[in-house]
Amino acid sequence: MTGEAEKKQPAGSDAPASPPTPGTRRPGGRTARTRAAVRDAVLTGLTELGYPGLTVEYVAERSRVHKTTLYRRWGDVEGLVADALDLAGEDSWLPPDTGSLEGDLRALAREVVSSFTGTAAAASVSAMIAAGFRSERAAAALRAYYTERFARCEAIVERAVRRGELAAGRDAGIDAGALVRAVPAPLLCRLFVTREPIDDAVADQAAAAALAAARAGVFTRGRPAGTAAGRPEQAD
Amino acid sequence: MTGEAEKKQPAGSDAPASPPTPGTRRPGGRTARTRAAVRDAVLTGLTELGYPGLTVEYVAERSRVHKTTLYRRWGDVEGLVADALDLAGEDSWLPPDTGSLEGDLRALAREVVSSFTGTAAAASVSAMIAAGFRSERAAAALRAYYTERFARCEAIVERAVRRGELAAGRDAGIDAGALVRAVPAPLLCRLFVTREPIDDAVADQAAAAALAAARAGVFTRGRPAGTAAGRPEQAD
Repeated sequence: MTGEAEKKQPAGSDAPASPPTPGTRRPGGRTARTRAAVRDAVLTGLTELGYPGLTVEYVAERSRVHKTTLYRRWGDVEGLVADALDLAGEDSWLPPDTGSLEGDLRALAREVVSSFTGTAAAASVSAMIAAGFRSERAAAALRAYYTERFARCEAIVERAVRRGELAAGRDAGIDAGALVRAVPAPLLCRLFVTREPIDDAVADQAAAAALAAARAGVFTRGRPAGTAAGRPEQAD
Repeated sequence: MTGEAEKKQPAGSDAPASPPTPGTRRPGGRTARTRAAVRDAVLTGLTELGYPGLTVEYVAERSRVHKTTLYRRWGDVEGLVADALDLAGEDSWLPPDTGSLEGDLRALAREVVSSFTGTAAAASVSAMIAAGFRSERAAAALRAYYTERFARCEAIVERAVRRGELAAGRDAGIDAGALVRAVPAPLLCRLFVTREPIDDAVADQAAAAALAAARAGVFTRGRPAGTAAGRPEQAD
């Protein structure tokens, strides 16, 4: 789910003065290249120094972008970190499409495992998550990043409904957001909270658990959570 | 799951020279009171300064324990943080016992939510988890803490098996560790990774999902994860 590192665009004519959101005006221009260089420096800095150690000076030196530019466009370290996360969300990643709900959930879980297996991207994401503990703005950027990423994953649920693998109708809508979140949760929890190892076996189990819960109607709106499909509702 | 803050013990006679593990020799002695004061200072320091900002000097000042004592018994900041976590694991917390698996899982999930709702203990746990990003030793202490806490939760599964709520036999053992981990994972993931809010509704859904997966045989050893009970195993 980390997406590929943004490839550098070929040189184009100079972009006009920066809009409020850096690098969105015209992909491929100098503005976009600057933003990518800054983002790379921020991620490296987060990994090497941690959020409290990251400075605008470091980013300037590393990215070869002048400090005044950094202050003008990003404001401060918080702004730099938040924009790096926003940029990570601008990739073209899509969730797996294997032909079945079971296959999609398992592939998604396995992708989480492989994306966190010893890569530079994994170190960057970890540093971002760490920054969330120290900066409200980083936390908000993380929330926005994951909200958008999980929204892309909802295509998995839509396809399952179309195939008839999940029941959805007038009085039984699916909480797709909760369903897709159930897959990576055990993996991310182990990686970043309880510090336990993850592997394909853990991934498969997480996917199987989400699938079983979905089939039991746990993610079905319009009925209380915990009431399995077909059983009479029980009072608490 | 955070447990209560350790109460200060009444004054007792002076404890003999410290054993390798601080404070285990005789509860209530000066050694134990020192360890508790130091732990409180460490947690406050982690919350206020974060792991990179925590110093032995700060802990000495805050706990009123001399620096030489801190260096001798705990070695350095890493040792202080690791011992604070070890101490947190020495409480008498037990998982809920409501009389049913469904009730126990829901109560456990709700307890996670309430334990992280704006308390000093919540800030301390959060700071510990943040330290795991910066220190291998803190990560190891977190892992040990959660391993032991989840082990206590396995009583929930044992009771469910005894009641006949979960099938267990010669060729169908239950992976109790995986089952109990499935409950807090969505909550801890939202709190510390995706930075999304949690409440009793999210808790109830997490518990219901874990219950549904358990009933479907997802946590049953001796058969591949993902094969629901009663269905023929399907090749990948």
